[in-house]
Amino acid sequence: MKRSFVREILEIIGSDTISFAGGLPDEILFPAEDISSITQKILSAPEALQYSFSAGIAPLREKLASYYTSLGLQTDPKNILITTGAQQALDIISRVYFKEGAVVEAPAYLGALNVFNSNECPLYPIELADDGVDIENFEKIFSKIGRAYLMCDFQNPTGKCYSIDKRERLAESAIRNNGIIVEDGAYMELFFEKRLPMLTSFAPLNSLHIGSFSKTLAPGLRLGWIRGKEKLLKPLLALKERTDLHTSTLSQMIADEFFSRGLFDTHLPKIRAVYKYKCDYLAQELGRLIPNFKFKKPDGGMFIYGSFQGGIDAYELARKCLNDGAVFVPGGEFYTDVSINSEARFNFTHPTLDEIKTGIDMISAVYYALIEEM
Amino acid sequence: MKRSFVREILEIIGSDTISFAGGLPDEILFPAEDISSITQKILSAPEALQYSFSAGIAPLREKLASYYTSLGLQTDPKNILITTGAQQALDIISRVYFKEGAVVEAPAYLGALNVFNSNECPLYPIELADDGVDIENFEKIFSKIGRAYLMCDFQNPTGKCYSIDKRERLAESAIRNNGIIVEDGAYMELFFEKRLPMLTSFAPLNSLHIGSFSKTLAPGLRLGWIRGKEKLLKPLLALKERTDLHTSTLSQMIADEFFSRGLFDTHLPKIRAVYKYKCDYLAQELGRLIPNFKFKKPDGGMFIYGSFQGGIDAYELARKCLNDGAVFVPGGEFYTDVSINSEARFNFTHPTLDEIKTGIDMISAVYYALIEEM
Repeated sequence: MKRSFVREILEIIGSDTISFAGGLPDEILFPAEDISSITQKILSAPEALQYSFSAGIAPLREKLASYYTSLGLQTDPKNILITTGAQQALDIISRVYFKEGAVVEAPAYLGALNVFNSNECPLYPIELADDGVDIENFEKIFSKIGRAYLMCDFQNPTGKCYSIDKRERLAESAIRNNGIIVEDGAYMELFFEKRLPMLTSFAPLNSLHIGSFSKTLAPGLRLGWIRGKEKLLKPLLALKERTDLHTSTLSQMIADEFFSRGLFDTHLPKIRAVYKYKCDYLAQELGRLIPNFKFKKPDGGMFIYGSFQGGIDAYELARKCLNDGAVFVPGGEFYTDVSINSEARFNFTHPTLDEIKTGIDMISAVYYALIEEM
Repeated sequence: MKRSFVREILEIIGSDTISFAGGLPDEILFPAEDISSITQKILSAPEALQYSFSAGIAPLREKLASYYTSLGLQTDPKNILITTGAQQALDIISRVYFKEGAVVEAPAYLGALNVFNSNECPLYPIELADDGVDIENFEKIFSKIGRAYLMCDFQNPTGKCYSIDKRERLAESAIRNNGIIVEDGAYMELFFEKRLPMLTSFAPLNSLHIGSFSKTLAPGLRLGWIRGKEKLLKPLLALKERTDLHTSTLSQMIADEFFSRGLFDTHLPKIRAVYKYKCDYLAQELGRLIPNFKFKKPDGGMFIYGSFQGGIDAYELARKCLNDGAVFVPGGEFYTDVSINSEARFNFTHPTLDEIKTGIDMISAVYYALIEEM
C-alpha cells in the first residue's frame, strides 16, 4: 500500500523547509482564544468527555442542518452524519457505495484516490475542464455505474470551480440515472468573492454532500460530516459506528459552541480575506520569478495549480527543490495513472508571505538551472 | 448491516432509564478540571489545532513506549501507532490482517465482532473458560489461520481474566505458528488488586497490543493505540492515514500532558478503588435480590456477567425491563451465532449506587414475574 507523497513529505521535511506541499490552514488564523474559552465552558459539564451517539451530538447536527437550510437546501438534523474529518466520510462512503466503482476527476484529491484504491473501488477518471468535467464523457460512464465523486468548489488540486450550468446538468444526470453524486465541499466556504450553489442543491436526493471543519475552524479537531437523505445515511451510520464508535465529543461540542456564539460569521470573512491576499501574492511571485509556470488564478480554496513549460519533469524538480529547502507537490500525484508530467500544485494558505517570496525564488533558481541542463 | 443492540439502546433510552447496558465510565471520575487546565495551556500553541502526523504526535508515542517499557515490555516510540479509539484499531487491524479469518472468544466484545463481520473476516469462535480459551481448541484453528483476537484482562463481556499459564501457552502458540495474536488491553488498567503480565510480553514480536484512553482518561476524546513491531505497524499506518488522516491533535496533546504532569499515577488508583466498590455493591444487590442469577465476581473491568437460572430468555427479560425503566444486555449479543440464551451482562461503572439498588430491584421484580408466568 503506497503512502501519500504529501504526507510522507510532511513527515520528513525539517522545520527550515519552506513548504507549498500540504493543504494546511494558516495557524495565525486559528481562533485559539475562542476555542480555549469555549473548551473551559464545555468541560464544566461531563458530557464533553463521555461517549456520545454514533451519528453525532444532536445540537451540532441541528446547527449543520440550519446551515444548509440557510443556503437554500432544506435539511433536517436526520440528514446529517458527523464524521472524524471529511477523510472518514470518504472511507465509509466508498466502502458502502463505491464497490462497483465511481467516476472521479483527473486530477483528483489524493486522499480520496488513496482511500478508494485501498477499498478496491474501480475508478473511472474523467479529465477536469475549467468549468468541470465534460458532461458527455461523464454520462457515458455514470449511466452504467451510477456513482461519482466530484469537488465542485476550488477543487483540490486544481483550484477549479464548476460552472452553475455544469452543476445543474450533472445533477440532472444523477437524477435521470437514479445514481449518487458524492460532492466534496471541503473548500466551499473558502470563496474569495462569491458563493456558488452546491450541485447537491439541484439533486438533494441523489447526492451525498461532504463537509469539513478543517478549513474553516481547525483541522486538528478532526471534524467533518455527510449530508444526505436518511435512506442513504443509514448504512453509513452503521459502518461509522463500527469504524470508531463516534467522533470526538469534545471536538463536536467545540464546533457546536462556535456556531452558538455566532463566531463563524466573523471568522470566515477574515479567513477569506487573508487567503485571497496570500493567493494574490503567490500568483504575483510565480508570475514574476517563474514566468514559465502557467496557471489560472483560482477564485478560492488553498492552491494554485499549473504546469511548467519546457518539458520539465515536476518530480525531478520537486526532489531537487526539497534538497535546497523548498517543496511543492508534482501534479502526477493526483492522477490514478501516475506518469511523469509537468504539472504542480502550490499551497498558498500555510507559508508566510516571506516564505512565499523566498521559496518561489529558490524554486525558480532550481527550475532555470534544470532547464539549462536540458 | 445490523447495528449494535447496545448502541441502539443508548440512543433510545430516556434519561430516566437506569442503564446497566453500556460500558460507560463514571463521569464523576473524569478529571475535567485537570483537562481544562491542560487544554488552556495546550491551546497557547497553534499545533493543538493543526494537522499532525498519521502515526500520532511524537511526545505521546514516547510516553506510551515508556509506559510499556516500565511494565517490562521493551518498547520504542516506533512501535506505537495512535488510533481514533481502540475501535479504529480493530477496524484497521481486521482490514489488514484478518482477511483470511481469526480466532475469537465466545462470547466476545460486540464492537469487535461487528467490525470484523462488517469487514467480512471469517470468525472462528472458541468457548471462553474461566482462565481463558482452551489451548487445544485454540491450536487446532490457530495453526491453520495464524490470527486471533483475545481480551486477556477483565474480558468484555464476561469479566474473565486469563491465567498467567494460559497467557504463556498462547504466546508460545503464536510464536510456534508464526502467527499474530491481537491482544485487546482496553480494560487492563482497571484491575482491583493486582496487575497480570500481558500476553504480549511473552510474544512481543507476534502480537499487536491494543490500548485505550477511554477507560482511564475519557472516552469522549476517542483515543487509543496499537503496539507492535514496525513491520506489522507499517501497513496499519498506511490504512490509518487513508481512514481519517490522523487522530485529533487536541485529544492527543491532552493525554500527553496528562502523562507529563504525572496525573495517571494519582488518577488510576482512584478509578480502581471506586470501581471495585461499585462492583462489590452490584454483586451484593444481585445476590440479594436475584439469587437465581449466577455469576463469578470479576477482579477488575466494568462488568458482571452471569446467567439466569430457570430457563429464562434474557432478551425477553431485557425488553420487559426496558419498558419498566431499567436495561441490561442479553448475553446472546456477544456470540457470533445469536441464539436465545439466559446470559446477561451488567455494567457497574456508570450507574450510581442508588441506581444500582433501584435498578436491580426493578429487574428482580420483572424476573420473578416472568418466572411465575412460565
